[in-house]
Amino acid sequence: MVSIKDVAKAAGVSVTTVSRVMNNRGYIGKETRKKVENAMRELDYQPNQIARALLKNQSFVIGIIVPDLSHPLFSELINWIEAYASEKDYKLLVCNSLQNAEKETNYISMLRKNRVDGIIMCSHNLDVEEYRNVAMPIVSFDRILSSTIPYVASDNYRGGEVATNHLIEKGCNKLLHISGPLDYELLPNRRSDAFQLTCMKSGIDCKIIQGAHVKATFEDNWNFIDREIASHLTDYDGIFCSNDFMAYTLYVYASKKGIKVPEQLKIIGYDYHSFTRMLRNPSLTTIKQPLDRIGKRLSSLLINQIEDNDLDRNNTVFDVELIQGDTT
Amino acid sequence: MVSIKDVAKAAGVSVTTVSRVMNNRGYIGKETRKKVENAMRELDYQPNQIARALLKNQSFVIGIIVPDLSHPLFSELINWIEAYASEKDYKLLVCNSLQNAEKETNYISMLRKNRVDGIIMCSHNLDVEEYRNVAMPIVSFDRILSSTIPYVASDNYRGGEVATNHLIEKGCNKLLHISGPLDYELLPNRRSDAFQLTCMKSGIDCKIIQGAHVKATFEDNWNFIDREIASHLTDYDGIFCSNDFMAYTLYVYASKKGIKVPEQLKIIGYDYHSFTRMLRNPSLTTIKQPLDRIGKRLSSLLINQIEDNDLDRNNTVFDVELIQGDTT
Repeated sequence: MVSIKDVAKAAGVSVTTVSRVMNNRGYIGKETRKKVENAMRELDYQPNQIARALLKNQSFVIGIIVPDLSHPLFSELINWIEAYASEKDYKLLVCNSLQNAEKETNYISMLRKNRVDGIIMCSHNLDVEEYRNVAMPIVSFDRILSSTIPYVASDNYRGGEVATNHLIEKGCNKLLHISGPLDYELLPNRRSDAFQLTCMKSGIDCKIIQGAHVKATFEDNWNFIDREIASHLTDYDGIFCSNDFMAYTLYVYASKKGIKVPEQLKIIGYDYHSFTRMLRNPSLTTIKQPLDRIGKRLSSLLINQIEDNDLDRNNTVFDVELIQGDTT
Repeated sequence: MVSIKDVAKAAGVSVTTVSRVMNNRGYIGKETRKKVENAMRELDYQPNQIARALLKNQSFVIGIIVPDLSHPLFSELINWIEAYASEKDYKLLVCNSLQNAEKETNYISMLRKNRVDGIIMCSHNLDVEEYRNVAMPIVSFDRILSSTIPYVASDNYRGGEVATNHLIEKGCNKLLHISGPLDYELLPNRRSDAFQLTCMKSGIDCKIIQGAHVKATFEDNWNFIDREIASHLTDYDGIFCSNDFMAYTLYVYASKKGIKVPEQLKIIGYDYHSFTRMLRNPSLTTIKQPLDRIGKRLSSLLINQIEDNDLDRNNTVFDVELIQGDTT
């Protein structure tokens, strides 16, 4: 490995001079600077960032914990988080909790040991207290952790309201909602609150059935529908699913059972991630979360905290959008 | 921040003893170990991994460069790479080249500066020489970089052969292949070689049209088909697409133009990532790459190199599998 001494020798200057050039400190003549820079280039000298990180007590690494790296919702978020972070010269360390509380605890501890500059929490399998004790910059996606930890989310309540009103406007009289799992107090639960309240206001019969966790294959979803939803299918004429995978599987299930979508049954989903954007035959009616803006905001909020600057550090709730597809 | 001295004081032992417990070195009585461990727990002591990394000259961080973090092929690969790496206590730093040669160069340089222990290259926008000069452990997905840099791939030639033979067995007489971009010498190009040779052997008329890069939305694919493929559509009765997104878009396009799939036109794809596994109406006929095994292997090959152990470091080519769907 090439050292700073080798660079100094090749450039015919002192180590202090090389260090000054590298750190842009003190007066350095143009010629000297050029000599040093040429030597660095020729020797392919890579200054040791780990040593620098120790010195500055900053690693320029952000940790992100998600429940499933391969889920399009999270891979898109990571994509946008990385895009913004890399503009600001931060790197992204990814951790996959697999919805497992122990793994999540271990990752938080690992990230602290590695002195990342901050953590973006997109996985939520622990009690709120455990995140409060993390004692480093942290931002959260879709969950309120404390008044001092900012969160970013789409307007989940509004999303539930828009979805429900859309089904009512399309003429549905009896509505079913397949929610996400409601065991933690997460912001997406507001979708279910909005569903219930909107139905009540309109005097519409409704029911909520709690769905499964985010990691769901087609077969998992199919079996869930077969077990929990099938017997209700003919009783309802509109179903609001809290994620697009469930909405899609439900469409396929209903079609196979001879129920015509959207004539007899209208289906609306939630997310509009890469799967949904690619999908045709049918295209799904759904609620779009602006994953690009959410990802960039998670990144910028965390970096603002880390750099302790005067920029905005407020919770951010992004507007959602109805995407009209073939299923309503 | 709690230091090793604080732990020693709380446990009533010397700093050397704490260090021994932490590093599992030298003889430590059971009682003493317990005292130290309790003190570490009570004080919530997090050993500084950055300092350790400097000491051991190892960071336990692996860098991975992909062309698109949000593409399901790469997000699944990352998922499996992380799963294996985390078992071995390595962390994953993700970099998104966005198919941009300059970004790729910058990332390689950044990873070297941060002294990652090795790099998994899944993005291929530079000339082979640039990777050879990296001078740290490196493994490659889908590309031969040098005789000393191991690669992992599915059997691309066999995949092309199986796909082509499948179309011929299903009765196709004139075959079209939409390949990936052939501007770099990548292993997936073998799919096109196999297509051509298999058609020649069977005396089947064939044509290859070069497709676009991996980042392709439905609209991009649709426009490409409209521009490059549409005028050929009725001349061919079987099309082998080098990725599932293209195959799916082609199915939608052909259907809209009144061409019946699979009766008039048979379509086969390649990849079988999460999008394809979720898809019904139609399910795609495709060639499955075992992304779980590829990801784990990329991880283990790199770690074997890093740890300089006696374990296997050979190039690995995994078998592919025909998935029969509705499009052939």
